[in-house]
Amino acid sequence: MAKRQREIGVAEFFSRNRHLLGFDSKRKALLTTIKEAVDNSLDACEEAEILPEIHVEVIDMGSDRFRVIVEDNGPGIVKKQIPNIFARLLYGSKFFKLAQSRGQQGIGISASVLYAQLTTGKPARIISKISPNDPAHYYELKIDTQKNQPLIMTDEVKEWSKEHGTRIELDLEGSYLGGSQSMDQYLKQTAIVNPHVTLIYTNPKAEQLIFPRAVETAPPKAVEIKPHPYGVELGTLMDLLRATKAPSVQSFFVNEFSRVGHGTAKQICQGAAILPSTKPAEINRDMAEKLIKSIQATKIVAPPTDCISPIGAELLEKGLKKEINAEFYCAATRPPNVYRGNPFVIEAGFAYGGEQLADKSVSIYRFANRVPLLYQQGACASAKAVMSTNWRSYGLSQSQGSLPIGPLTIAIHIASVWVPFTSESKEAIAHYPEIIREMRLALQEVGRQLGSYISKKRRMHAESKKRDYIQTYIPHVSDALKEILGFSDSDKETVEKMLVSILEKHRGELKDVAMENTEYNEEFARIGKGKTSDDDDGEERSADNGNGEDCKAPDKKKNAGYQQTL
Amino acid sequence: MAKRQREIGVAEFFSRNRHLLGFDSKRKALLTTIKEAVDNSLDACEEAEILPEIHVEVIDMGSDRFRVIVEDNGPGIVKKQIPNIFARLLYGSKFFKLAQSRGQQGIGISASVLYAQLTTGKPARIISKISPNDPAHYYELKIDTQKNQPLIMTDEVKEWSKEHGTRIELDLEGSYLGGSQSMDQYLKQTAIVNPHVTLIYTNPKAEQLIFPRAVETAPPKAVEIKPHPYGVELGTLMDLLRATKAPSVQSFFVNEFSRVGHGTAKQICQGAAILPSTKPAEINRDMAEKLIKSIQATKIVAPPTDCISPIGAELLEKGLKKEINAEFYCAATRPPNVYRGNPFVIEAGFAYGGEQLADKSVSIYRFANRVPLLYQQGACASAKAVMSTNWRSYGLSQSQGSLPIGPLTIAIHIASVWVPFTSESKEAIAHYPEIIREMRLALQEVGRQLGSYISKKRRMHAESKKRDYIQTYIPHVSDALKEILGFSDSDKETVEKMLVSILEKHRGELKDVAMENTEYNEEFARIGKGKTSDDDDGEERSADNGNGEDCKAPDKKKNAGYQQTL
Repeated sequence: MAKRQREIGVAEFFSRNRHLLGFDSKRKALLTTIKEAVDNSLDACEEAEILPEIHVEVIDMGSDRFRVIVEDNGPGIVKKQIPNIFARLLYGSKFFKLAQSRGQQGIGISASVLYAQLTTGKPARIISKISPNDPAHYYELKIDTQKNQPLIMTDEVKEWSKEHGTRIELDLEGSYLGGSQSMDQYLKQTAIVNPHVTLIYTNPKAEQLIFPRAVETAPPKAVEIKPHPYGVELGTLMDLLRATKAPSVQSFFVNEFSRVGHGTAKQICQGAAILPSTKPAEINRDMAEKLIKSIQATKIVAPPTDCISPIGAELLEKGLKKEINAEFYCAATRPPNVYRGNPFVIEAGFAYGGEQLADKSVSIYRFANRVPLLYQQGACASAKAVMSTNWRSYGLSQSQGSLPIGPLTIAIHIASVWVPFTSESKEAIAHYPEIIREMRLALQEVGRQLGSYISKKRRMHAESKKRDYIQTYIPHVSDALKEILGFSDSDKETVEKMLVSILEKHRGELKDVAMENTEYNEEFARIGKGKTSDDDDGEERSADNGNGEDCKAPDKKKNAGYQQTL
Repeated sequence: MAKRQREIGVAEFFSRNRHLLGFDSKRKALLTTIKEAVDNSLDACEEAEILPEIHVEVIDMGSDRFRVIVEDNGPGIVKKQIPNIFARLLYGSKFFKLAQSRGQQGIGISASVLYAQLTTGKPARIISKISPNDPAHYYELKIDTQKNQPLIMTDEVKEWSKEHGTRIELDLEGSYLGGSQSMDQYLKQTAIVNPHVTLIYTNPKAEQLIFPRAVETAPPKAVEIKPHPYGVELGTLMDLLRATKAPSVQSFFVNEFSRVGHGTAKQICQGAAILPSTKPAEINRDMAEKLIKSIQATKIVAPPTDCISPIGAELLEKGLKKEINAEFYCAATRPPNVYRGNPFVIEAGFAYGGEQLADKSVSIYRFANRVPLLYQQGACASAKAVMSTNWRSYGLSQSQGSLPIGPLTIAIHIASVWVPFTSESKEAIAHYPEIIREMRLALQEVGRQLGSYISKKRRMHAESKKRDYIQTYIPHVSDALKEILGFSDSDKETVEKMLVSILEKHRGELKDVAMENTEYNEEFARIGKGKTSDDDDGEERSADNGNGEDCKAPDKKKNAGYQQTL
């Protein structure tokens, strides 16, 4: 057994476990490839403060093969980095940076290159240019799966009319289907939550779709932050202490963490009974453990939140209005919170009613750092948050531990410097309790608005049903009165109208009727032979029975007015 | 931007993405650690054909720290390999071997070591002995997270009374809670599907639980296989062609794949218009593509299935009986199938009714290669298979796209040489269409048995309800007859009993009544004044009305017999 033990290459590992990267089916492979390329383009543009314009083209080459081309107007990539970025797994800059970005793991696009190579044997073709004065570099790249290193097949300087930007071309096995988990849907949802982006998409049927930008300003650039002390763990702290260049523990805390000034750093040291001037290298495990305890006991300001740029409730609501034909929309953005030292913000938006089916589970639109998540809903913290919210109190039906049933679409967005995904394919958010709690709070916030809308709607429905009863029975009542009391036709009509008005008033809807009710009572008294009781004031009036002759039609104009308000 | 691009270390990557490995909460961390250690022990014992006896001890050390000790009687690990196996991610033997095993990725136990070190700063303590004559080696190990290399803190020879085996001791942050996602549950379910294992478990409350083995024979040892040609992809084929030592393409196919003899290999080459004697190194991309197409067009026997050892329907049913207090059990094992060239077998078992709640979603017990999966049910192919099965036809209620509602527990087991998990934490099975289809077929197979049980139960229920009606109304009918026809009390009693018998017979339950019905009809004719119609033969008999005097009580004994059969 011992002889067979050996190292497993990263690329080897992921090529066998390709479903971890989002390549478990041909359909998903196409989506994942486009997603990774577009996300990278958006990140690069935003970092360079360029308004993104991205061309996506997918060409059907027959027998389940597709050519995917993604071209951006981003800042381009310096020559030396091109092979590593596209043809080496676990390589990148975003992993080491605490700032909100779409990519974060250094896996995405190289995984697509790996998949393309596995299924068609063809290298990735990349061209990139960093400025009008620099040449464009063209590469054909493959990945050495055993060593996880780029294999450069071609390396040329090429003419490219673009001022700057990057273009990637991949041939891969895929399958094109529309629907809720397609690349079409991904691009559509991307346009919704990124209104500053222009997307030009040519689908495999050679139809061109253009999603023009709706806003001429990019979202505020996310600022990079240092880790917050509350999120640090013993092992990490020990690694950091070993690696730091700071001369003392006090300056170590000030330099390496956010929200720690000299005072706070001193307080942390004192809490751990360690001299602030101790050299970081001298801190052993037990001392580090004391430091951790002291950090937990020290009051430190919450991490800064300018590193996060949420969509905003208003924009989220707008996005939903654009996408879903509903009757009621609402949204909310939660205040920032922290999980494991990483700040994050949760936003939720609802679209209710309209053309959505009432007897099906609600739909959930999930976004992480402005990227739509289309797969693995069941595994996502958002689904858990939805299922563990009590929707009955907001007027939807729900069986225990399930999604609620109703004509509702829920959009949930998490923006964070580090979104914890359940897998490298970044399809679902891990079940961190802090995140689920914030999601539930966001859902409750929006849920209350929805609840009051639904209950209002129900009241109105009940109301109109009752009115239906009124309209059904009152003619019979007045017919009966006419017969018993010998009313004339005009008297009958008058009584009927008055009855309608009084009953309407008891339904509590027509305030003006209530105000003028006394007039009616007087009139009724004048005509009527019967007795009418008024629930509102409990007053009982005796009518002068037997004097049916002096009946008079009430003022027609006034009655017409009431009819209109019904 | 370019300056910040750099390589991301594997250990670095996983320590930040620890939820990928099953360490997203303290509770889960404890479960994952025990699971990885126990799975390794079971694999080692089975490979060495030793009946496993595993001691698991979890000690509560206060303030959310636990010491986990797992000790087995396995074959032990040779000294040189101990540091790599326990303190290096992506290192192992099972990854390269196509055979059913619990571990497969070379990540599990080293991830636990990494987590322990991150949360408590303490190294893992390992002792292992390979035979009574060899010394036991004791190591204290940490992982260098940047280099992903073992850091050896202590390396000693120790006295250990055991003949052979391995023991690992870890201190980590955790949280102990019972329930459906606890280590208690994991060990319990492990005992169910591994009846050849003895588990001795001491929980953090210092209570000892012993799960003794129920079978004295280990399951047949899973045989290692070579990949099947149907599962190979272009890129992989090209890599294999480059790496092979075979002198010709023909011998390459015979040597590197299962189910390919010289004839089949020749056929594949001919189909691709390539000479069987071509050197593998001479095959270029286009030729490889032709080979792939030719493979798909060639008839090749399905992969051997002795590499898989399913639990078996009978044993699965037994396991369910042991675990769940239900009223109806059934199970089935599907024939082997293949996804991406990997053979797999699906088994399903149901436990219905009993103490299970009827108004809740069904419970799913999931197993992969005999390992219970307790988390991420929503992300699992099995959940998808359950939700996409039409349970209404088996008598359960289900709203579209949801789990069915009913007092049912479903066990699903996948046994394969390579289980595709959705993440490194091995909690859910990826959505490969072939796997979902097989799962649905298994569910349908067992579902039909359940359906016929439920509908039978319903019929019986309806039956007993009808009988209740009979018992309620017949006395009134006979009272009325007595009054109208002037029966004596004994006549009334006789008629009542006869009516009961006839109506029972019409419910189709008492066959013997039907057989003797004619006697009753005769008797009734003798007593009765009325007219009785017999639906069974449509025959209508006219009774001699008006001769009430010659009524006679029927034979008491015979009636008593019928009463008993009711």
